[in-house]
Amino acid sequence: MNTPGYKTHISSQFNAELEDVRQRVLAMGGLVEQQIIDATRALMDADHALGQEVMRADAKVNQLEVYIDEECSRILARRQPTASDLRLVYAVIKTITDLERIGDESNKIARMASDLSHQERFSDGMVEVQHLSRHVSQMVHDALDAFARMDAETALAVAREDQQIDREYEALLRQCITFMMEDPRTIRRVMDIIWSVRALERIGDHAKNIAEYVIYFVKGKDVRHLPLEDVERQVKESS
Amino acid sequence: MNTPGYKTHISSQFNAELEDVRQRVLAMGGLVEQQIIDATRALMDADHALGQEVMRADAKVNQLEVYIDEECSRILARRQPTASDLRLVYAVIKTITDLERIGDESNKIARMASDLSHQERFSDGMVEVQHLSRHVSQMVHDALDAFARMDAETALAVAREDQQIDREYEALLRQCITFMMEDPRTIRRVMDIIWSVRALERIGDHAKNIAEYVIYFVKGKDVRHLPLEDVERQVKESS
Repeated sequence: MNTPGYKTHISSQFNAELEDVRQRVLAMGGLVEQQIIDATRALMDADHALGQEVMRADAKVNQLEVYIDEECSRILARRQPTASDLRLVYAVIKTITDLERIGDESNKIARMASDLSHQERFSDGMVEVQHLSRHVSQMVHDALDAFARMDAETALAVAREDQQIDREYEALLRQCITFMMEDPRTIRRVMDIIWSVRALERIGDHAKNIAEYVIYFVKGKDVRHLPLEDVERQVKESS
Repeated sequence: MNTPGYKTHISSQFNAELEDVRQRVLAMGGLVEQQIIDATRALMDADHALGQEVMRADAKVNQLEVYIDEECSRILARRQPTASDLRLVYAVIKTITDLERIGDESNKIARMASDLSHQERFSDGMVEVQHLSRHVSQMVHDALDAFARMDAETALAVAREDQQIDREYEALLRQCITFMMEDPRTIRRVMDIIWSVRALERIGDHAKNIAEYVIYFVKGKDVRHLPLEDVERQVKESS
């Protein structure tokens, strides 16, 4: 294992176990990343079948969550890790909860897509939804990249992006409300869009959480609930 | 420590540490329970000051989350717990994430309350919102009670309640959409109510998650993502 920040263990079996867990987290991350992309495409194209596929993928994501939690619990019991190994296991335990919830949020978008596919297609504002979705899936990709390389700088950039996501989300929400007020017949359909946009915003929050666990692993500091400037200081200070 | 299911340790210091963590989780739980009640009252009464108080309480909830995570990490490193001790620590690590997010959701409701307080008061449908809020805070209370006594039966009842919450939520949502369609001038205000109702539904999900960790601790089985009937079987089977 050449990832910087990892110790090499006398027990190569222990090394292999940690590496296996790490790889499974990345596999789980790859699945949820694809879920976001597919769910948004299903929403854009009112593609019922693709929406259904996203929902099926969620079962795999859930299985991985349960499997990785079991593995972490087994490693804690048998290997009794300390220092950076313990921080890695801790970061994994927290990260997979967020990955699973990203899967849940994508699932919600997929359900909206299946609903909308029975209705008239809706194109107003959809370009902006797609834009937000691309932005959010890039953020998840970067958070996973930060996790893969245990890179605090990339993680910090993800935490920064979340502020931009929140601004895009607010703007889209205002636009949706204006649509509804101008043409109340669209209310039901626009509500489905609003739930999807909200789900994307939540995914951004989860990506940010993952980024914070990476910073915790690398710097040994819990930066949750700190203002962004303080997180920036923590990342720069001890490097 | 007389709670059933706990081992007594040779090290009374270790006992004290586990008991301290358990008490802090319950304290954190008490805070978020109060947050839900206060946030809903602030929403009902359009009480700006109470809304602000909920937001201040959130800082304490966040501090407790960080503190308990540190403690758990320290216990894992120094005490290297196994079997039911390890399951307790694991359940705590997962539970506090959900408690913190219940705090976040209450915070959102409090923010809506502060927004609404600048506007005309809105009474339609508010009785139902209050009813949902009572139901949800009772569910959180029961989940914490299940945690305090490590009681799988109470936890199972909480998991069952979540289905009822989801039905109440869906009904309230339909009602809100009807309001908006009948009188589009209410759209902005009703959207604030919708976000609050959604937050309450999410709190129900988090309470259910906590219940599942209790079942995991007591039965040693991970029941997440299982259909309710399977959870019921797991709880009854091994008791």
